[in-house]
Formats: sequence, C-alpha cells, structure tokens
Amino acid sequence: MDASLPRTRNECLAADHLDPLAHFRDAFDLPEAVIYLDGNSLGARPHAAMERATTVIGQEWGQGLIRSWNTAGWFGLPARLGNKLATLLGAGQDEVVITDTTSLNLFKSIAAGLRIQREAAPKRKVILTERDNFPTDIYIAEGIIDFLNQGYELRLIDEDLPLDAALDGDVSVIALSHVNYRTGAMYDMAAVTGLAHERGALIVWDLAHSAGAVPVQLNASDADFAVGCTYKYLNGGPGSPAFIWVSKRLQQKFRQPLSGWWGHARPFAMEDSYEPAGGIQRYLCGTQPMVSMAMIECGLDITLAADMGLLRAKSLQLTDLFISLVETRKGEHPLELVTPTDHDRRGSHVSYAHPQAYGIMQALIGRGVIGDYREPHVLRFGLTPLYLGYTDVYDAVDALFDILETREWDRPEFNSRLTVT
Amino acid sequence: MDASLPRTRNECLAADHLDPLAHFRDAFDLPEAVIYLDGNSLGARPHAAMERATTVIGQEWGQGLIRSWNTAGWFGLPARLGNKLATLLGAGQDEVVITDTTSLNLFKSIAAGLRIQREAAPKRKVILTERDNFPTDIYIAEGIIDFLNQGYELRLIDEDLPLDAALDGDVSVIALSHVNYRTGAMYDMAAVTGLAHERGALIVWDLAHSAGAVPVQLNASDADFAVGCTYKYLNGGPGSPAFIWVSKRLQQKFRQPLSGWWGHARPFAMEDSYEPAGGIQRYLCGTQPMVSMAMIECGLDITLAADMGLLRAKSLQLTDLFISLVETRKGEHPLELVTPTDHDRRGSHVSYAHPQAYGIMQALIGRGVIGDYREPHVLRFGLTPLYLGYTDVYDAVDALFDILETREWDRPEFNSRLTVT
Repeated sequence: MDASLPRTRNECLAADHLDPLAHFRDAFDLPEAVIYLDGNSLGARPHAAMERATTVIGQEWGQGLIRSWNTAGWFGLPARLGNKLATLLGAGQDEVVITDTTSLNLFKSIAAGLRIQREAAPKRKVILTERDNFPTDIYIAEGIIDFLNQGYELRLIDEDLPLDAALDGDVSVIALSHVNYRTGAMYDMAAVTGLAHERGALIVWDLAHSAGAVPVQLNASDADFAVGCTYKYLNGGPGSPAFIWVSKRLQQKFRQPLSGWWGHARPFAMEDSYEPAGGIQRYLCGTQPMVSMAMIECGLDITLAADMGLLRAKSLQLTDLFISLVETRKGEHPLELVTPTDHDRRGSHVSYAHPQAYGIMQALIGRGVIGDYREPHVLRFGLTPLYLGYTDVYDAVDALFDILETREWDRPEFNSRLTVT
Repeated sequence: MDASLPRTRNECLAADHLDPLAHFRDAFDLPEAVIYLDGNSLGARPHAAMERATTVIGQEWGQGLIRSWNTAGWFGLPARLGNKLATLLGAGQDEVVITDTTSLNLFKSIAAGLRIQREAAPKRKVILTERDNFPTDIYIAEGIIDFLNQGYELRLIDEDLPLDAALDGDVSVIALSHVNYRTGAMYDMAAVTGLAHERGALIVWDLAHSAGAVPVQLNASDADFAVGCTYKYLNGGPGSPAFIWVSKRLQQKFRQPLSGWWGHARPFAMEDSYEPAGGIQRYLCGTQPMVSMAMIECGLDITLAADMGLLRAKSLQLTDLFISLVETRKGEHPLELVTPTDHDRRGSHVSYAHPQAYGIMQALIGRGVIGDYREPHVLRFGLTPLYLGYTDVYDAVDALFDILETREWDRPEFNSRLTVT
C-alpha cells in the first residue's frame, strides 16, 4: 500500500481537493445522498446524454425521419463510435465497431475463431474458458458447441485445472475475461495471449470490466479478438450496445455466422447472396438501436477527455484506500479480501467475502451506499475515478462498519432475495 | 376497386373528415410540409416517446441507477412488451419477447428449426427461402449453412422454381416474409403454413412489413416461428429492438444457440452451466438497450388503441386510392404496378416500377413527399393509416405526376447514388 494514502476523513477531503480528475464529477447526474459503487454494473448518467437523446428523438427521428440514416450519420455510427473507443483499447482505426450485445459479440468471436481453426487445426476441438468467468461467456460457448454438434467440448479452468495445464494442444479457442467480474482480478493480457499463441490457440478477451477502467493494449498484446460492453465504466446508458474488436491480422480471414444485411459488402444493393464487407464492418449484423447507441458518445467523450494514466492512478489509489481502511478496521469481522493486492493484477473494483454479504449489501443500499452482491457471499464495490472521490470511499467504508457493528444486516427486510439485482 | 373511393381532392378532404382513425395523427410528431410515405421503413415518432425516453434517462437511469433493473421493471420489459404486441399477432401470452434484431431472431428461429429437425428428420438438409426475400433473411441462412458445414444448402424460390415445386422432402426449414418488402405482396399464412407442414417442413415467418400493418393470426395459422421489427408500422423508433414469437408447441423442444445469460433459467444465480429458461424467455440472450426498448411501448399503445379491423380497412382504401389515381392518370408513362391488386394478397404499401425510379424518388423527396427507392427501379410508398389521410395520398400522386410531366427526375442532383437510403 502507498504510504501517502489518506487515513482520516479530513485527509480524504484534502486528497479530493487536490484531485486533478475531481471536476469530471460535474459531467454526471448523480442522486443526492448516494455513494454509487456500482458503476461497474451500470455507469452513471452523463448530463450530456439527455440532450443527445432529445436531439436524436426530436430532430433526427421526429423531423428527419428516414433521411436521418444519411443526414444524421446513423448508418456510420457503429464505426464512428468504434473508432473513438479504439484509442481506449490500444486499437487502431477500422478495428472496432459498436453493435449488438457482449453475448452476441462473444458468439461472433468464438465462432470466427473456430472457423479459422477448422481449416488451420481441424483436430483442435476444445473451447477453453474459466469456471469463474462471467456466466454468459460460458453459456455462449455451450450454445455454439451444442449447435455445431461436431465433437467440440467445453473445458473450464479452475482450481484443479490451472490455465497452463488446461491450455494444451486440443484447445482451439480460449475466451477469458481480462478483469474478473466478481473478484476484480486482472490477467496480464500480453503474457496470456503469448502463451495461447505458443500453444496454437486463438484468444477472445472479454473487456466488460476493463474498457474505460484500466489501460488496455490490444494490438501491443497481439490479441486476436475482444468484446465488451459500453454501459459500465464507459457510461453509455442501460443496455447500450456492446463492442467488438478483431485484429487486422484476422479480419479478412473468414465470415462470422451472424451474417446480417449490415455486414454485407453492399448493404443497399439488395443482392441475393451474402458477401462480407471488408474489415471490421463484417461484424455488423442487423439494424441497431440508434437512441441507445447515440448516447454512448457522451460517456466516451468524457473518458477521452480524462487521461487514462491519471484514471488508472486514481483507480488504484481508491481501491488501495478501500482495502487499507477495511483492513485497519476489520478486527474480528469475517471479511475476506477477494481482490488481488498486487496492482498489476487488479481492475477497478474491490470485493470482500462475508458470510452475511447479501444482507450487508441490502443494508448498505438502504443507506444509499450502492454496491453489488455477487454469488457466493461477495460484496462488490466498483470504484470509478471519474465520479468518485476519496471521501466517498471513506464514508462507504464507515457505513459498512456501522452495519457490521450494529448487525443491521440481520433485519428481515435486508434478507429477502426477491430484490436481488 | 371500391366504387366509393374518392376521386377528387375535395372528395379526399371529405373522406378525411369522416375517417374514424383521423385523430390518431395527433399522436405523432411529423414535420410540416412533408407527406411521409416511408413508415414501412421507419415509422413516425409518437409524441409520447420523448416523455418516455426522458423518464428512462433522467429518473430511471440518472436517479434509480442500477436499482432500476428491478424498480423500473427493466428486467421484465422484453416479456411485458412482448405480451402487449402478442394481441396484434394473433398470439398468446408468454409467446413473444422483444429483443435483439430481426436478423438475430431469424438466426435463432432457423437454427432452432434445424435443431428440431436434426432429430426428427436428419436427412432434410435444405433451408428454403425466396430470391426476392429481404436480403438479410437469405444472408442469415447462408451464415448458418457456412458455420454448420454439415451439407446444408440454401434453395431459393423464384420464377423458375415456384413454392410448390421447391417445397419437397429435402426441406428442413422454410423462411418467408409474410409481406414482401419490395412488392407488398402478402402470403396466405395459414395456407402456406399448412403446405409446409404437410411436406414435413417447419416455417419461420418474417413479419417486418406485417406487424401493426395487417391482421396476423399466428396461432390460428398454426405457424412455428415468427420474427419482425418494431420500428416500421409499430413506430418504436430508429432501430428499436425486434421481436420473436415461437409456438407453444415448440418452445420447450430445444435450446437456441445464442444462449446468453438473459435466457438462463436462473440468470442471477451465476451458474457455470447453461440451463434454458422455460418458454419464450429462452430466446433472450444479452442485455437489451433500455431507452430504445422503452419507447416501443408508446407506438404499441397507439396501435392497440386503434382497431385492427379499421386499420386494415383504411389501409386497403389508401392503397386502392393510390393505385386508382395513378392508373387514371398514367397515360403513356411507363409506370408498372408491382403490388397485387387482390386485397387478400396485398400488404400496406404500393410499389410501382419505372425506368427512372431512382431520380423520381429523389425528386419526390426534394418536394417533401418521402417514399423509398428499392432496387431495381421500384418506387415504394408506405401507406400508414394511423397518420396518413386520403388527401395526403392525393397530393402525393399529384406530386408524382408533376415530376413525371416536367421530367424533374432528370436533374443531375436527383441522380447521385451517394444519397441512397
């Protein structure tokens, strides 16, 4: 831990005063009396998103009508926003599009990887992922395997089968979350990608908890595919469309199976046979939800205006501070840190296990300290440097210990599972 | 043609005065000096959509934040809106969800159909569709065939291979548009479904140009699968999420391959293996764009408040009127009616072929008469009874003939293909 970390509330106030990112909080609408520690589930609302949406709805849809596909640039939006996002991912131009959902982009990526390997290494029949991965990554791989019905199988990395042992010569495609949704543990992207390639596998990185949260270097890591969402650290809005990146090495090698009209080489020619568009455009499929998509730009512009080096430094300080305050006060409370202490292995959230985690989180939410509960027994706190300060972290930890010490989590209203999010 | 059709502009004004649906126009925001004949590409904006969006963005996202997945009912929205839409499709409750795009729902439906047939009739290896279908229906089938790599093939109904001859014992799944996007021709859903079943095939109906436009009876037709979009006649907004319906006979028979977390039996239990949810919920995949989705309800509520019998009657009168006015005036102009004259075979748009169709449509748009150009040489006019009147049709035809008679379509600015939508 950094010796310069604030220890008291007054030191936190002083740290906020000196914080070069503090003014970005003014770009967001946040409720009074809420400390929002769930920006890694749904990011806060940029003020600008409302104006953008009313323009798209009122002028572009209402007045421009069908003409807005050209005049308001709707048709080019997945690529234009993808290019903006690229710089946050260590990616180049024409390598990213915003489209569909993370689950669907996982399907496209894994399917494309299998399609390449079918010719390059037909005996490789394993899709490798982690038991502790976000479940949709597993479920999508299962769907592909069931549908193909060609002897593919799923293999799950877990305590009994670590990555190095699991990544053998049978593996066709490996899909990993760069930052784990539950623990906050982060992989070394370059090292793991290098290992996958050395063993002859292609790799898909899920950046849901990375994009806008930690520095990502897709091209420098020589990665193959990446997907992620825009509604967490990128503050795109509830369910805003996801993104997909494909290395320029692989873009032209195949067609992905979700081959809808928007990914055609000539989408308006109405031809009776599919021909994939060049480059990343072939990862588009059907018509995208323009109001939800347009608002993504507001969140992107804020993140791009901040410096990723400063964001990462503050994120590490906030997570360090949270851990330091909890460890200092925890005494006999059965709080177990789940998140790695090593900076190089940590994303932008902190998780603690506690046997009463569910009730504790409900009690915190009842006090306006909004974090997230994750199975099993995990309290998850997303620390978003764009709109959280040091004092927020101090006050959140204070509320946590007040709940622990008063056993507020034991109240019946905090233990109904009907309200789980 | 109906002898009671208005013939003069004054008779059209009188017909508008008596129109029991005329007041629905007040529910929509439409630009001044525009006659909008492209509601079958992008429907007009309900006034209510703006208020709904600002509530979702300002209160639900901005203030409710992550809590709105429960408190604002976001998680239940695909099913709740699906149930509202069901009544317009002759479908029951728990048979429709709003989600993803039409292309993706086609993928799910065709894939599910093949999955059922793989066990029931493994030798059937043909996916049948029409050469003249909306291209994405063809492209999605091609993507499935290429990905499966198991000897499936595409067969296209066309002039040389009519439906009856094409639908032989090799056909596994047939995918047809109920109303053709270009010609406006409508199939007899019950008859074609019956034929498909008699020949041992499953059928997917694309209702993109039907939902909200013509009466649809999915259950009474004994159909298998249906998909469609909400941004045309249902006025859901640009790129608003699509829908999928699956017959209760088939819902539980298989898992569709786009098996993301939202289609899991217990989506928040974070289990490490996929188990499909019961019923239509298993057709959900990833997180949906809530702002674009919520606005769909505004368009749905308007259509539900109108009577589908009245809507269909007015639609047929408007299309009859358009055809009657053009046929009366066309003289030597090479305008060829593409749309069927038989009411039972016609959707809610009228198409005419003309060698100069592209320039003519640009000239019409230049005058504020917004229709659509479709390859090859087709002028397409969507006649939406909720917000168009008889006089609109009269004035649109008048503009068309003024352009034809002055050869306004020949101006260079109307012949640049760069602006094609």
